[in-house]
Amino acid sequence: MSLDLAAIRAAHERIRPHIVRTPVLTSAWLDAATGGRLFFKCENLQQVGAFKARGATNAIFSLTAAEAVRGVATHSSGNHAAALARAAQLRGIPAYIVMPSNSAKSKIRNVERYGGRITFCEPTNAAREAACARLVAGTGSVLIHPFNDYRVMAGQGTAALELLEDTPALDLLLCPVGGGGLLCGTAVAAKSLRPAIRVIATEPAGADDAARSFRAGRIVPAEKVDTIADGLRTTIGEKNFPLIQRFVDDVVTVSETAIIAAMRCLWEELKIIIEPSSAVPYAAIMEGKISVTGHRTGIILTGGNVDLDALPWM
Amino acid sequence: MSLDLAAIRAAHERIRPHIVRTPVLTSAWLDAATGGRLFFKCENLQQVGAFKARGATNAIFSLTAAEAVRGVATHSSGNHAAALARAAQLRGIPAYIVMPSNSAKSKIRNVERYGGRITFCEPTNAAREAACARLVAGTGSVLIHPFNDYRVMAGQGTAALELLEDTPALDLLLCPVGGGGLLCGTAVAAKSLRPAIRVIATEPAGADDAARSFRAGRIVPAEKVDTIADGLRTTIGEKNFPLIQRFVDDVVTVSETAIIAAMRCLWEELKIIIEPSSAVPYAAIMEGKISVTGHRTGIILTGGNVDLDALPWM
Repeated sequence: MSLDLAAIRAAHERIRPHIVRTPVLTSAWLDAATGGRLFFKCENLQQVGAFKARGATNAIFSLTAAEAVRGVATHSSGNHAAALARAAQLRGIPAYIVMPSNSAKSKIRNVERYGGRITFCEPTNAAREAACARLVAGTGSVLIHPFNDYRVMAGQGTAALELLEDTPALDLLLCPVGGGGLLCGTAVAAKSLRPAIRVIATEPAGADDAARSFRAGRIVPAEKVDTIADGLRTTIGEKNFPLIQRFVDDVVTVSETAIIAAMRCLWEELKIIIEPSSAVPYAAIMEGKISVTGHRTGIILTGGNVDLDALPWM
Repeated sequence: MSLDLAAIRAAHERIRPHIVRTPVLTSAWLDAATGGRLFFKCENLQQVGAFKARGATNAIFSLTAAEAVRGVATHSSGNHAAALARAAQLRGIPAYIVMPSNSAKSKIRNVERYGGRITFCEPTNAAREAACARLVAGTGSVLIHPFNDYRVMAGQGTAALELLEDTPALDLLLCPVGGGGLLCGTAVAAKSLRPAIRVIATEPAGADDAARSFRAGRIVPAEKVDTIADGLRTTIGEKNFPLIQRFVDDVVTVSETAIIAAMRCLWEELKIIIEPSSAVPYAAIMEGKISVTGHRTGIILTGGNVDLDALPWM
């Protein structure tokens, strides 16, 4: 199995009762500032406050009854954990979540809200994977990886599907890239529906594994990961990378300063709360890495889970 | 002329090309917390970040060419000023705005953005009215009052019209009250379309002229005005009060603590930026002043213009 438009359409039918068809916002001021027309797909207004609800719900509702009965498991400190817990609750099965012991309280609360069963571990990748493997072995649950999974990618692609349905004639589509789940779903949906559209991935310079890998033709980890965009610190997945090579036109990187400035600008102009990761595509426009002048550009705003006591401009 | 459903429908046809049909958001978590079903009409996502775009646009596009030619004038330190400047720019006529010299910089910038011609005055009601009268006399422009005007009220009523179209079977409708422009439009629209609906106005206890007036049967100013909800500090208008008496079921007041708590709660759960005035109806629910249990309740979120450097929980 891989990823194609049919899988994304099937995912959309499957998850439709459980997700929000999020609005697309525009701003005359942002259009004037950039010389283009911008269409913001508001996945911050999605269930659990992030696009992750789409992929997790598709993965869980794709399972057969026999597969689902012992529940699902994942390791995540972020939005995928809450999304998986919610989808599992909707299906009536347990969700086992491994979280690093230093996870933000708000993220822990978000998983608890939906009845996720949390196991804490040391905050290293190795400890997370080991703890998750033990959980899967002990419970017989199904591992649902946050991005290296075609069912998850198909679910994430439904945001672009809706955006292209609701906003005709887009010729440019921007989204952030972390592990590549959203990017793969977005690029496959967009290129299948509109072959002439350009899809550009945007990434913090402080977590530039996708840009390095795209140039090198093989997965190259970032030398050092240091970014406020906490959703984008992961390295792209093995299943994601070939799809990125085939369907994505370019990967550009942005500075931390631009991410914070873009985040604040979108809060002020759109009146919505987005997390730093969501601001990365607009940061690329602000920094001149992408020109949208004369184009109709779609931008996926990925999530809105931020700590209101620690805003980056405070 | 007064205010009726026909006038609100005509206003909607008139302003439709110039305003946003704002989305209605819901939250499973807020529903669970309150025991009801809540439907939030997001006028923070409206042009100029507030419902005021509706009334100002209706007033300006209601003018004959002969009336419009010398422009419009108003005094306002807030959203009405920006809304009037924008609508005047759309019609290609000047907008003369009297603003108190201590107005927030963001508010001044918002008026300048749309080419409003600002005259500063001392920050008293008397100075504002005198300066505005001089401007009207000197320019031959038409005064567009922020709320004591049937054209403005008809425009503001279009938000409720859309909400009732998009959300069937509401049985309760909540909105804040300052001067009464939004409240009158909302109440007339709602009671005309659904006579059984209850319309409840909500107000800060620190600016409780509407509640006092509603009980007394005549306009009674607040004893002392002191509230963070800067959109609600005005006293209700003479044209507004009789409509409130006839079409509004109750007026309830809320504490400052509840306004701030409700504002933060709605930021966190809905992922949108609302100003303190917008939080007043939900504050009334949080404080137990209004029970929404078992009801389908519409709530008009009035605006999203806040200073991100001075959030009330910082």
